[in-house]
Amino acid sequence: MALNERIAELRERVRQQRPLIHHITNFVVMNDTANVTLHIGGLPVMAHDREEVAEMVAMAGALVLNVGTLSPDWIEAMLIAGKRANELGIPIVLDPVGAGATSLRTASNRRLLEELRVAVVRGNSGEIGALAGMGGVVKGVEAVVEADDPVAAAQKLAQQYQTVVAVTGKRDIVTDGSRVLAVDNGHEWLKTLTGTGCSATTVIAAFAAVERDYVLAAAAGLACFGVAAELAAPLAHGPASFKVAFYDAIYHLSAEQIRAGARVTSLSDDQSIAVAR
Amino acid sequence: MALNERIAELRERVRQQRPLIHHITNFVVMNDTANVTLHIGGLPVMAHDREEVAEMVAMAGALVLNVGTLSPDWIEAMLIAGKRANELGIPIVLDPVGAGATSLRTASNRRLLEELRVAVVRGNSGEIGALAGMGGVVKGVEAVVEADDPVAAAQKLAQQYQTVVAVTGKRDIVTDGSRVLAVDNGHEWLKTLTGTGCSATTVIAAFAAVERDYVLAAAAGLACFGVAAELAAPLAHGPASFKVAFYDAIYHLSAEQIRAGARVTSLSDDQSIAVAR
Amino acid sequence: MALNERIAELRERVRQQRPLIHHITNFVVMNDTANVTLHIGGLPVMAHDREEVAEMVAMAGALVLNVGTLSPDWIEAMLIAGKRANELGIPIVLDPVGAGATSLRTASNRRLLEELRVAVVRGNSGEIGALAGMGGVVKGVEAVVEADDPVAAAQKLAQQYQTVVAVTGKRDIVTDGSRVLAVDNGHEWLKTLTGTGCSATTVIAAFAAVERDYVLAAAAGLACFGVAAELAAPLAHGPASFKVAFYDAIYHLSAEQIRAGARVTSLSDDQSIAVAR
Repeated sequence: MALNERIAELRERVRQQRPLIHHITNFVVMNDTANVTLHIGGLPVMAHDREEVAEMVAMAGALVLNVGTLSPDWIEAMLIAGKRANELGIPIVLDPVGAGATSLRTASNRRLLEELRVAVVRGNSGEIGALAGMGGVVKGVEAVVEADDPVAAAQKLAQQYQTVVAVTGKRDIVTDGSRVLAVDNGHEWLKTLTGTGCSATTVIAAFAAVERDYVLAAAAGLACFGVAAELAAPLAHGPASFKVAFYDAIYHLSAEQIRAGARVTSLSDDQSIAVAR
Repeated sequence: MALNERIAELRERVRQQRPLIHHITNFVVMNDTANVTLHIGGLPVMAHDREEVAEMVAMAGALVLNVGTLSPDWIEAMLIAGKRANELGIPIVLDPVGAGATSLRTASNRRLLEELRVAVVRGNSGEIGALAGMGGVVKGVEAVVEADDPVAAAQKLAQQYQTVVAVTGKRDIVTDGSRVLAVDNGHEWLKTLTGTGCSATTVIAAFAAVERDYVLAAAAGLACFGVAAELAAPLAHGPASFKVAFYDAIYHLSAEQIRAGARVTSLSDDQSIAVAR
Repeated sequence: MALNERIAELRERVRQQRPLIHHITNFVVMNDTANVTLHIGGLPVMAHDREEVAEMVAMAGALVLNVGTLSPDWIEAMLIAGKRANELGIPIVLDPVGAGATSLRTASNRRLLEELRVAVVRGNSGEIGALAGMGGVVKGVEAVVEADDPVAAAQKLAQQYQTVVAVTGKRDIVTDGSRVLAVDNGHEWLKTLTGTGCSATTVIAAFAAVERDYVLAAAAGLACFGVAAELAAPLAHGPASFKVAFYDAIYHLSAEQIRAGARVTSLSDDQSIAVAR
């Protein structure tokens, strides 16, 4: 099966299975990521209290941990939910928002990566560079200096924590440390809106809930996210009208659109991703 | 006066009186429900600190308690605000988001219902079923299995806590345990957006602030909410453009549109709702 | 240089410098104000934990303190961030949401004004009147009774705390206690949406980050905000479509539009604002 066909099939699988995506996430994007979860085909829930997160995550298809507006008690809840997710084999997708910007953020993300088995880490080049110790400067939550070598930084981080790392930017990179996929979908409008990185993380989580090859799941999620952005762009008059068109496009995103539009290529020798398993 | 005429009159009363709707609600929907409050004609305020909730609620026309992203200290604030509201005769509208999904949510909602006199409980069929102990399965915040008999579950819950229960779904049910009204307005697009149940709760609260017959207030609020959704649907290209058109429609919703569009019928013998009082 | 030319130049300076605007703000408007920050040309970050706010604010061009959904621990974080901002000469813009509505809100805002050097306070007439002790009644977060004399109330508050006060309403007033500017831009649709005052505060912060004459910065920010609203209004069918058009207009707001549309006039004898410095 060609890669785009597999991506299209995964997108449909999300629609069919309607996985619950449990988010412990930041206040800025809760509404947006709940909507994106619904539009891609999943069910969202936001729950952060330590008394209920273990019970809630047990119903979930994936757990999103996002430190965008972190405080220590939320990190504790993330660890409780994450450990339960690990016990149950539920994939965790981590969004290390602002890693590198403050020591609290860098330390909290490292702690999550050390104490939990994280399926996918999705960050911008500055965040991933900072976590890998390979360059990247984060101002607030924005990468103002890219990692020196995003592919190498992602591979190092993936190997260090035995996880899959997705670096989003003009070209997205997804790697488990050996296999490397590049995703060349997306649109400049995405940078004019808050929380589009967080929403990409949510889409990856929805795909990780239905596909255990997390390299494929992350690349497929990012390709779908990017194709929807490309479909929306011609309808936009600015960031806000782009957002409306983009969300509509995520909801309607069809197998035909994915087959025609997804641009995922392997940068590693291993070509297994592109063939049927 | 015909029922639709009364609903139209209540909608106008909200616009004239501009009741303050004090929300202690979840992080996901705060922005949406504040906007819906304004669009229907009220004034929103979100305040959750126990030091100020009693003082804030004293100015309000209604109090919304919504446990969508609960934590124990917020429940304490809800109880403080709720007790003050009870003292002052200010109606409380409870949205038991995710009741049945975790024991914390189920227990917290029961506690609110036991310690406060709640004017209206608005939930989906799964939440109401779970609270009534009559079926219903909630996954996250979504009813994945409906209550066995939504009307019976609503009636039981209403009788148990001497409240009005509104169950929203394809057909909305409103009952005080004896009178039963059905509302057949709304649109499928509502299910593609997060927080539409919470927004329906807010609209009910605005109507409860201006009408002490809470069965009528809840049914009127749901009918207006649903008529606005129906008016918006032809303008939608997807969930996000639906949301824009829907909010615009709530704002503009006129007596003529309500008279022509509201579909509320009595399922009980008591026909008093449909006649002038 | 004519005043409108200077305003246009400041708007462009924001785009060029991309200042980080650190918000410690309320849950209702976080998403909106993050987007408005991006659209006007800055970078937003929301961070409230006392362990990281001092480190985060050190990167910022301005700090927004907004008490819309306050609790005592957030006030503590505001004080920590604010003191560090004062040490570093980073301007603080305070939005005293709901001052006058509850004693907690009034006391918290006074404490912030007493313990910090605040560059600009932006509130509605009720909030500023309440803080100045000169009339104004606030119901929730809305001014239901205006200050007796908004200009006098703003001047008194400005003198008392050696700050710049911006009172927004049909006519906006900006004063440092002696100089007084009036801004006659804006549109009625702004009142139909939640958080537009908070968004105006954010725009003022972006301008204060690039211009140390805070009277000019505040007036310029409000003029740009208002011109964008006027440009958006003809495209609106209601509050939600207005919001989309408004955000798009903020993003695209050009020097030509500002030159043609800004309406700022001096109400004080001092004409220095209108000439080149």
